[in-house]
Amino acid sequence: MEVDLDRFSRRDWEEPTDADPIRFAMVGLGWWTREQAIPAVESAEYCTTTALVSSSTEKAEDVAADLEGIEATLTYDEYADGEASDAYDAAYVCTPNGFHREHVGAAADHEKAVLCEKPLEASVEDARAAVDACQEADVPLMVAYRLQTEPVARRARELIRDGAIGDVVSIVGHMSDTVLDSVDETSWRFDRDLAGGTTLNDIGVYPLNTIRFILEEDPQAVYARTESEQPAYEGTDEHGAFQLEFSEGTLASCTVSHSASLSSSLRFVGTDGELSIEGLFFPTTQKVLRVSGPGIEGEFRPEPVDQMREEFDYFANRLQRGLDPEPDGEHAMVDMRAIRAFYESAESGSRVELDL
Amino acid sequence: MEVDLDRFSRRDWEEPTDADPIRFAMVGLGWWTREQAIPAVESAEYCTTTALVSSSTEKAEDVAADLEGIEATLTYDEYADGEASDAYDAAYVCTPNGFHREHVGAAADHEKAVLCEKPLEASVEDARAAVDACQEADVPLMVAYRLQTEPVARRARELIRDGAIGDVVSIVGHMSDTVLDSVDETSWRFDRDLAGGTTLNDIGVYPLNTIRFILEEDPQAVYARTESEQPAYEGTDEHGAFQLEFSEGTLASCTVSHSASLSSSLRFVGTDGELSIEGLFFPTTQKVLRVSGPGIEGEFRPEPVDQMREEFDYFANRLQRGLDPEPDGEHAMVDMRAIRAFYESAESGSRVELDL
Repeated sequence: MEVDLDRFSRRDWEEPTDADPIRFAMVGLGWWTREQAIPAVESAEYCTTTALVSSSTEKAEDVAADLEGIEATLTYDEYADGEASDAYDAAYVCTPNGFHREHVGAAADHEKAVLCEKPLEASVEDARAAVDACQEADVPLMVAYRLQTEPVARRARELIRDGAIGDVVSIVGHMSDTVLDSVDETSWRFDRDLAGGTTLNDIGVYPLNTIRFILEEDPQAVYARTESEQPAYEGTDEHGAFQLEFSEGTLASCTVSHSASLSSSLRFVGTDGELSIEGLFFPTTQKVLRVSGPGIEGEFRPEPVDQMREEFDYFANRLQRGLDPEPDGEHAMVDMRAIRAFYESAESGSRVELDL
Repeated sequence: MEVDLDRFSRRDWEEPTDADPIRFAMVGLGWWTREQAIPAVESAEYCTTTALVSSSTEKAEDVAADLEGIEATLTYDEYADGEASDAYDAAYVCTPNGFHREHVGAAADHEKAVLCEKPLEASVEDARAAVDACQEADVPLMVAYRLQTEPVARRARELIRDGAIGDVVSIVGHMSDTVLDSVDETSWRFDRDLAGGTTLNDIGVYPLNTIRFILEEDPQAVYARTESEQPAYEGTDEHGAFQLEFSEGTLASCTVSHSASLSSSLRFVGTDGELSIEGLFFPTTQKVLRVSGPGIEGEFRPEPVDQMREEFDYFANRLQRGLDPEPDGEHAMVDMRAIRAFYESAESGSRVELDL
């Protein structure tokens, strides 16, 4: 094995420079931004938060009161108008999915780099418009697939690329949490136009994208099924299951739920061995990577890293070095088309081929 | 928790009697019978092997030469004619699937109890005929789902029944082995009429039936996909993936392969916790059961039992007590219809509802 597992959580992407830290505008101040993104940036090496953007000045100022270094507190309209745009270098967009396009577009207008949460938008068309806006303005757009800078996922990818388990034949994965039980019925999550879906898109994108990342391949066809049991969740996909078809016969089978116990796993079965990861998809949970093959047999329980800090530092360090961060908008478009196909498939009961 | 986990591998079904051991005719002397079934019966408490049935007297006598207590060595024709039928009480049928019907029917004709390997037959119609033959002759028919007497599966069922993880929402499972790589191209496994399929039926039946057993519910609809990559396996389902829909929104996603690394697992995610089992489906591998819920948190690595011995002893002990062994033919018919639906679905690309 060529893979260096001794320094398991090393930042293989990192190259410190003399550049100033990248200054972020946090666009959208929901719980994820407040409890995950802002603390992650506070502990990060290559970036800092200098602007806060929300629905009201009051809300932005409330959040700013607990933070140091905030230079601007803006409404979405003020942000769109380019107010105080000298106060930040990049925008982190974390709002209901259906608002991503306009906030990404505003950042592009102001020539700011963008880190946009996933899924990229509520529809393929709006996602395409967001990507186009960044391409036309020539600003970097990275979509926030934080698993792609999670050391466990990176080591898994290296091991599989290095042939540790032979050719991948089967993949099984799952992700579940209690999100629907923790929001009220007025939540944007129940609004199809704003959310683009409930569970298959919101957390289905984790196994979907992470499988693509580790396998280094895109699915050719999908099948999906949605279920909703609780009356309050009628019309949503409270639970879901999907299959992905890759080239050379590789099949992936996954389940997701927004109203089950918090849990996640991903397993790759190959011609010569297997690799599984427990606890993969949540930001700071203990991960366990087990790998078994002709040249390697082991269990790794690395000290958990803050996935959000890794992601922000990666994005910022790339910008400092004058490099585009990845995964970019075109990469995200593949997930958008796959998610649309999930819902088409769930509606029709048939598999849907992807035109990639 | 009401579940007794201290005596993890106890035989909760066992009740010794003064009855004589059940004498088995082994019908079909392929590697599974020789290397798994016969040694299992040799170490069993309630049964013994007294007759061997094969394609030729010579083959039966060859196998008999290494064994004690064999009273009859028969060809299939002699067995069908009822020769030496006083020498055995029950038949263990382990031939290519498409011959099960005739061997089960012969046992029924001779008023012998039957333990028939799974899947029960190559087609729903022939399986139905085998079940009917036993019902008409009023002989017990058990289908050899050995997981149903595997202590890990029984404890998992008890834990879930007892509410250890709440309501089951999602299930993911997989099973893979190298069977296709170990047989030559003339194998009955490549003959659709004899085998009834390649992988979705032959090992798909393990997660399918074990999920039914642990969940105590039957699927209402299925979707499946098959893949075949290697030229030698053209026209077979070398790899497969399937989804099962249960009532109340429970979804199961599984993958299977007959040409990948030997591996298996099954995981139940519930509203309040989760339960997973590693290594479940193979006869003597180490099993690991992990369960996490409000009333329980633990990992169990019981000393592996010989699944085949447990199954034979259970079957024999039931007969000694004058009780019908389970799972019976009607239980197996549900799998037969589900497997037919798998292949229909793989052909059409659409989900298939089961008429149960």
